[in-house]
Formats: sequence, structure tokens, C-alpha cells
Amino acid sequence: MEDCRIYLDNAATTPLSKTVLDAMMPYLTTHFGNPSAIYSYGREAKLAVENARKAVAKILNTQPSEIFFTVGGTESANTAITGAVRDLGCKRIITSAIEHHATLRTVQRLQQTGEAVVNYVQLLPDGHIDLNDLEKLLAESEAKTLIALMHANNEIGNLLDIRTVGELCKKYHAIFYCDTVQTIGRFPLDLKEIFVHFISASAHKFHGPKGAGMLYINENIGIKPFINGGAQERNMRAGTENVAGIVGFAKALQITADNCEQNSRSIQELKMYLYHRLKNEIPNIGFNGDVEGQSLYALLNVSFPKTDKTEMLLYNLDIHHICASSGSACSSGVNQASHVLEAVYPNHNRVAIRFSFSEENTKEEIDIVVEKIKELI
Amino acid sequence: MEDCRIYLDNAATTPLSKTVLDAMMPYLTTHFGNPSAIYSYGREAKLAVENARKAVAKILNTQPSEIFFTVGGTESANTAITGAVRDLGCKRIITSAIEHHATLRTVQRLQQTGEAVVNYVQLLPDGHIDLNDLEKLLAESEAKTLIALMHANNEIGNLLDIRTVGELCKKYHAIFYCDTVQTIGRFPLDLKEIFVHFISASAHKFHGPKGAGMLYINENIGIKPFINGGAQERNMRAGTENVAGIVGFAKALQITADNCEQNSRSIQELKMYLYHRLKNEIPNIGFNGDVEGQSLYALLNVSFPKTDKTEMLLYNLDIHHICASSGSACSSGVNQASHVLEAVYPNHNRVAIRFSFSEENTKEEIDIVVEKIKELI
Repeated sequence: MEDCRIYLDNAATTPLSKTVLDAMMPYLTTHFGNPSAIYSYGREAKLAVENARKAVAKILNTQPSEIFFTVGGTESANTAITGAVRDLGCKRIITSAIEHHATLRTVQRLQQTGEAVVNYVQLLPDGHIDLNDLEKLLAESEAKTLIALMHANNEIGNLLDIRTVGELCKKYHAIFYCDTVQTIGRFPLDLKEIFVHFISASAHKFHGPKGAGMLYINENIGIKPFINGGAQERNMRAGTENVAGIVGFAKALQITADNCEQNSRSIQELKMYLYHRLKNEIPNIGFNGDVEGQSLYALLNVSFPKTDKTEMLLYNLDIHHICASSGSACSSGVNQASHVLEAVYPNHNRVAIRFSFSEENTKEEIDIVVEKIKELI
Repeated sequence: MEDCRIYLDNAATTPLSKTVLDAMMPYLTTHFGNPSAIYSYGREAKLAVENARKAVAKILNTQPSEIFFTVGGTESANTAITGAVRDLGCKRIITSAIEHHATLRTVQRLQQTGEAVVNYVQLLPDGHIDLNDLEKLLAESEAKTLIALMHANNEIGNLLDIRTVGELCKKYHAIFYCDTVQTIGRFPLDLKEIFVHFISASAHKFHGPKGAGMLYINENIGIKPFINGGAQERNMRAGTENVAGIVGFAKALQITADNCEQNSRSIQELKMYLYHRLKNEIPNIGFNGDVEGQSLYALLNVSFPKTDKTEMLLYNLDIHHICASSGSACSSGVNQASHVLEAVYPNHNRVAIRFSFSEENTKEEIDIVVEKIKELI
């Protein structure tokens, strides 16, 4: 039986690509060696890991020695932020209230332990980072500073001007960690052109496997491992490598990057089609974030007036086999208001639904979703 | 073409079981949801994770609420040890010089930062932990103490008397972290019967997938997450769950535990067969660890006099399709002497080779290995 569900929560996770799984299969069957072992099984696993590293480095236009495999974006964020404070001497962190919890909770922990003071940069009314305030904050202290700002917000889709933030970091000698979990592969990122010290990624956001991630560490800085133990990842990340996951990470990123131009156009069209239909056909509807401006093409965050019906909308969409979310999946298990929407639109008192797309979605699916929403509210 | 290799490095990693991979496949294909999502795809993933947790808890005779999925033994060790120091108030760690690097490097980091003082318990001549010295150390300080000792040593196979160490911890109000990476599923571990606060596991050591592990945290203690971010694993371990890995972990542990009695007998026979043949047929051979006593049945560490030929033995065995190692895989990438053998046999000046077995090995393979060793030296 064909699956009749319409999946519009690709910012939470994506289906694993068949091509990616095929690339992983040898490492889930015959090529099972531990990459640290010196015999044949080990060498073939090691080769797979190193080829994956080279492929990822090439896509990002950087060196393989700057690519470290982790198990996901959260571990990468913890490693970068903690390393910047403990090993690079950052005494201050500038971040924003709308970062992913992987950043916010790590920053808060370092604040609690007294290892860093934290400044939150102001937001503009549409949820963008106020770059003037960022420069003001950078200028007002001599303390070595870490900037932790995400490239695309995972709830409202706003895109950071990563180049300008990089230039500010260069000017003020700050360390820059950019969470690129939602954008890697989906936008061309040339790390020779952008001033940034750390970027992070999670394979399952672009049709790779869960449990596979990456941290880019600029060669000009050196941090100690966050997870201590064996000498894996050139002493930077201990623990037996998830070889199949690493192979899947690289393959998925390759496919995403190779098809980036074409997919970005078609996905953007889907997004704008949903946007215009909803805007034209549903009264009092709104949109969170800078939808028509600097925005992730794979994501649309819709705002409904709060009624009994809109409050039940997500549940009712689910009953009708339509999958969307209220915000970050990492928080949707807990019944809390979105910290992102609270920060951008205080006291907004509306119902938000995030639709996020992949190249597997179709215009027909969008039509079904719009009709169903109209029926349900 | 059939693979003609003889794999005797099962303490480093094991081939993924076909049955386990089959159990994982739905979560690598159709059941791709993020377990934190509330719609159908999310719920089926969440259910898989929670069923895995229940299965693991049942095998260990404990509560599902005490089982936390991680990505492997190293992350589990880092979480337990760091948590004991930062959140449970342990000011002192008692460990041994022959622990896995996941323990030793974490302990050393906490010593460097001044968060804990470290005592190394004495070893007996056969590499066992000196339990009298352990009690002496426990008695001589009032400081809240963490005991970090492994159940089976991964290089020489010596088994710790986990019950007695647990009773000592109870008597002296110490926290007990036991690295059970080499023993979980292979020995019956009843956590209602043993006084222990943390145990760790890695699925790929028992025919599960790489990138999937577990930390048991006794319900009487509470630590903060080591990796900060989302609310996964009941706020204890942030990051999107590797659902397929978790399902594979539980399935592999189930199979291992179900067949433990039968496999332990047959593997022990293989080990002793290799032991007796080598002992009887090769002059000046020796064995590291307490081979005939309290020892892991799946591992034999052989000691050869150092000659040009024995120094090349591992490489030559590899050329002849026989896979064994000099010690821990996590260190074999780096060309260093084994810290375990250095600690137990200082200045030993011999060549060590670790053979480690699984239920897939046969007596015929052992015969081939013995003949090849005789030929090569």
C-alpha cells in the first residue's frame, strides 16, 4: 500500500535517500571493520571515512583536516561553543534569543558555571538579527568573544547575513560559530570566502542518516576534544566512528549540493505557492519571519488567529495524514510555547504552524494541504 | 566470492547481525520520523525508541527510566564520569591505570581542570585490581568519591568482581561507574542485585550497529546532561535520536542475552583450544592477564618473545587474511605501546597479540591461525 501521508516537516528530519542508503549498505554488512584497526577490514573502513571527509571538504571548499565527523548538530554545537570558551579563551558569548536549544542550553550552562558572560543581540521586528546592535556589542568590550548565530533560523527561516557577521568578527577579533544545520548543502557555502571558525551540520536534515553530523573547525584555531577517549578524528572526537553514518553523511551532502540550484528553485516555488494561496484565501492569516525577504526557501511559518479550531489544527492535519509542526522538533515533545516566536513576537497570542519542504514535495500536495486547512478552520 | 578472512578482533568491533539490520531497516526507510514530532511518523519512531528502552531495561532487570541511549561507550563514559564530578559532588576519582581511554582521558581532563583529584588503585601481578588497596583508598579519605573501574578489561580480559566492588562502594558511600562495554549481554547482569550507579554499553561490540550506545543511570542519582540542547532522552541527552541505531542496539542486546549461555560455552571452548594449542606448540609463549581464572571468555591476549618475526606477526597475519590486534582499536591507529600492558607488566619487552572471538568463529579457523603463527615465527 502506498503511503498517502503528506510530509511537510523536513526541517525536523527528512526521509533517508535510497541512493544514500545504498552507499551505506556495504558498511552495514561486509565492510564492518573498526577504522582504527590496521588489518584489511579496518583499512577499508578508514578509507571510507577519509574519502567522506575529502568529499565534504571539497563541497565546502576547505581542507579535509578541518572536517570532523560527529553524531549530529547538537554535539557539534556543544563542541564548538564549549571549546571556544574553555580552550580559546572566550570570556563572553554573543548569541540571540532565537537560536536552537543546542546553542542556547550550552551557552546557559557556561553562564551558570561562570565560565562566560552572555549578551543577547537585539532582534529587528521581522526576526532578523540587528547587525548594528551586534557591532555595538562587539565594540563595547575588550573581552575575547564568541559569536554564536545560526545561518537559517529553524522555526521562522530567517537567513543571517553570514558574510557581514564574519567581517564583523574579523574586525573585532571574535570567534564565529555559525549553526548551518538548516542550510548546508542547500546554499553554496564557500569557506574560503567566509570568515567563520566553526560550522555544524546534521545528515538527517538533508536525506542522510540520523546519528551523523559534522563540525568544521577552521585550521587557524585549535580546541581540545569535547568527548574524551580514543584517538579517533585526529584526537578531536573520541569513540568508534559510525562508518556507515559518515559515508551516508558525505553521500547525502554530495547529492544535496549537486542538485542545490535546481532544487532551490523548485522548492522556493512550492513555498511561495503555499504562501500566496494561504494569504489570498484565508482571512487574518499571517506569516512569521521575513518570508518575502532573506528567508530559507524550504520553510514557511504560518500564523493563524487563535481559535478553538486553529489550536487543534496540527492534530487535525495529522488525522488527515498531513505532517507539519509547531516549531522545532527538538522541543515539540514538550508542551511549551516556541522560544523563537516568544522572542520575535512577544504576547503574539496566535497559533503558528511550520511547513517545511523538500524536493520530494509536489504542488498537488500543497493544494491538498490548503484545501484541508480551509476545511478545518 | 566468499570472504576468506578470519576475523578475530571482536573486542574491537563485530559484524552487524543480519537479523539486527533487518530490524533496523524500517527506520532507515519508511519509518523515518523524528521521535520528537507529534504526528504519525514521529509517534512510530518514538514508540520504537521506547520499546527498545523497555527491552534493554528488562534484560538488565531494571526500569526503562534508568536507560539512556547515547551514541556509544565513550560518550557514556564521559557523561557518567563528568556528571559524577560536576553534579554529584565527587571530589575524588579512584580508577586504575588499565581502564579504557574513554575513562582515563576523561578522568585526566577533570584532574587538569582541578575538578577532581585522582587515585590509581594498585594492580595485582596478574593485572587484577587489588581490592584491598581499593578499600584502603576508600577508607583513607572523607571526600565524596567516584569509583571508575571496568567490568572486563578490553585488552587482557581480566574480569572485575563487580559485586564486591559494589559492596565496597555501598559501605563507603561512593559512586560506582562500571564500564561494561565488553561484558553487557555476554554475562548476566542483574542491576537489582549489583550496587552500581552507572554502566555503559556500545552496540557494535555485540553485533549491533556502530553509533549506538547506552548509559544506565541509577534512579537514586540525578546528573545533568553532558550534551546540552533539546529535550530528548527526558532532558538527559540532547540531539535527534538515531532511531535505527537504538532499535539495533536493543535487538542486538536481546539476541546476545538470549544466547548468552550457549555462546559463552562454545566461545570459551574456542578460547581454551587456542590457548592450549599455542601453549603446547610454541616455545617461550606467554599469556597476558588471568587466562585460566577470572577472564572474559571471548578474549585471549598472547605474549611472544620479541624477535624480528614476532614484531611483524600482526602484519603478516593480515597478509594471510587473519585479523587480530595488538590491543585496543581505539589506540591502534596511533603507534604507541599498550598502556594496559605497560601498567601490568612494566618493561615486559614482548610482543602482544589480542585474539577476540564471537559465536561466528570456528575451531577450523583456530587451527588455521595456529598453523600460520607457527609458520610465521
